[in-house]
Amino acid sequence: MYSGKEFQNVLNRIKPFIHKTPVLTSSYVNELLGAEVFFKCENFQKMGAFKMRGAANAILALTPEAKAKGVVTHSSGNFAQAVALAAKLMEIKAYIVMPKNAPKVKKMAVHDYGGIIIESENTIESRETTAAMVTEKYGATFLHPYNQEEVIYGQGTAALELINEIEDLNVLITPVGGGGLISGTALVASSFSPIIKVYGAEPKIVDDAKRSLMSGQIERNDRTDSIADGLRTTLGSLTFPIIRDHVTDILTVSENEILEAMRVAYERMKIVVEPSSAVPLAALIKYKDLFKGTKIGLIVSGGNVDLSEFFEGLIE
Amino acid sequence: MYSGKEFQNVLNRIKPFIHKTPVLTSSYVNELLGAEVFFKCENFQKMGAFKMRGAANAILALTPEAKAKGVVTHSSGNFAQAVALAAKLMEIKAYIVMPKNAPKVKKMAVHDYGGIIIESENTIESRETTAAMVTEKYGATFLHPYNQEEVIYGQGTAALELINEIEDLNVLITPVGGGGLISGTALVASSFSPIIKVYGAEPKIVDDAKRSLMSGQIERNDRTDSIADGLRTTLGSLTFPIIRDHVTDILTVSENEILEAMRVAYERMKIVVEPSSAVPLAALIKYKDLFKGTKIGLIVSGGNVDLSEFFEGLIE
Repeated sequence: MYSGKEFQNVLNRIKPFIHKTPVLTSSYVNELLGAEVFFKCENFQKMGAFKMRGAANAILALTPEAKAKGVVTHSSGNFAQAVALAAKLMEIKAYIVMPKNAPKVKKMAVHDYGGIIIESENTIESRETTAAMVTEKYGATFLHPYNQEEVIYGQGTAALELINEIEDLNVLITPVGGGGLISGTALVASSFSPIIKVYGAEPKIVDDAKRSLMSGQIERNDRTDSIADGLRTTLGSLTFPIIRDHVTDILTVSENEILEAMRVAYERMKIVVEPSSAVPLAALIKYKDLFKGTKIGLIVSGGNVDLSEFFEGLIE
Repeated sequence: MYSGKEFQNVLNRIKPFIHKTPVLTSSYVNELLGAEVFFKCENFQKMGAFKMRGAANAILALTPEAKAKGVVTHSSGNFAQAVALAAKLMEIKAYIVMPKNAPKVKKMAVHDYGGIIIESENTIESRETTAAMVTEKYGATFLHPYNQEEVIYGQGTAALELINEIEDLNVLITPVGGGGLISGTALVASSFSPIIKVYGAEPKIVDDAKRSLMSGQIERNDRTDSIADGLRTTLGSLTFPIIRDHVTDILTVSENEILEAMRVAYERMKIVVEPSSAVPLAALIKYKDLFKGTKIGLIVSGGNVDLSEFFEGLIE
């Protein structure tokens, strides 16, 4: 396991490629919860999500020879954009495998960040074989969105910055999808402080992490229709054991509770967050008795959301 | 005119009732403009707008006798909410005159902040006579949203905090509606620094401030249908001369340019701003050649906007 010093090295290494994101507080939220919440705003991160940290760290860990051949990933979400942008900043090639039917806005974002889009069919098998083909053809290194050590360590640096800035936190809470963010956060917490409890939060209808903790093995989801589109994935072989060993509990919330927490973020805090990022706040509101009187660090994971309808409504 | 020290006193006096709002930067905006922009986020202010500062200062300036009788204003916008909340925090009564047909969401906000809503007809005459009646009946002191010294000085404290935090600003820019914010900002700038240029920004279709500067007298607007609903008012007898004497220029932008700047705020900076707050950014983008290489402080005036359509779109 990484020591605190090693995490600090990771942070120093990726610093030129990321923002040190601000920490916000909300008196409304603090009064609502009877606790102090420090929002680490990774929605203000480059390309709009914490994924930038892991992508940057994974690419920086490559040998010069590997860098020269580029990187490849398959994703239609934030990790695709993160790899494209990190690669661009480091002046290497990024091949992004995206399903043919991926939303145009996501393809545009990857394209704008300089990623080379390779189309696949809309199945996980097609994505994987297409990515393997790219590796074969160009010698590009495959980067996994969460189930890769350097990615996990990179994601942990958001919590590290937060701990460096806010003293005496009792709790850290993050959303849980594939588990990269919460694993990195939990490793940082246990390296720096024996007293910080780490919680995960996920939608009830994709509660694979909660069930995995209970059964002791990686569980799958029957449905994937949560509004929190970043949290539909299941845990990985690397992230699951870290979560099992270092996370206090996974809290689950309903779709309505996620929407209500989003409204608090937008209407009270005036920040744009993606639905996945509202899940930890929803959990704090739902289980507030657990957290009374504590100092909580909450990682706001990202802010990439399609606001077209809102803007169209403004024009009338 | 207030000295720098007196402005500092105003800030110290209102401090217990306001947030020291954060200052954000955006590498996207900086690259776009070839300048450094520091966004003073009054959208994160209590009740969501800088108006809290002026309202707090105006109430604090009252005698204990006047405080005991309460305050009154007529507004359907942010100043109504600001007076209601400031009065609540200071434990005095706030009578808010609102037209019968004011949006329910605005009435709810005033009500939630503890304001006593008094209904009027939907004409400025009816609002004024109703407010005068409240003054007569309860002895409440009338507070004007912008044409009042203590309000202007209070609004200036946003710029004061920004100047205290960011050194060597060359430019300050704010939206212009009735002129309270820009007057306070201009007075602060000239008290603290002889080199800071202050610019105002307003929608082209309600360009009364621009025309007032050109004609040398307070001009009115023929239309009031700008999307920037906080900027439809004309200048006041107190704010106009301050603007005339201390503001370098008023820049005007089209409705489309305002919308484009809103998109930058939401999609790139991930902050919720009301349309009026996007007007200065729209002006910086439009007139970027004026500002190349400078350090700019931009007051983000507020973030109170109706997001119902966006949330309804999320549920589907």
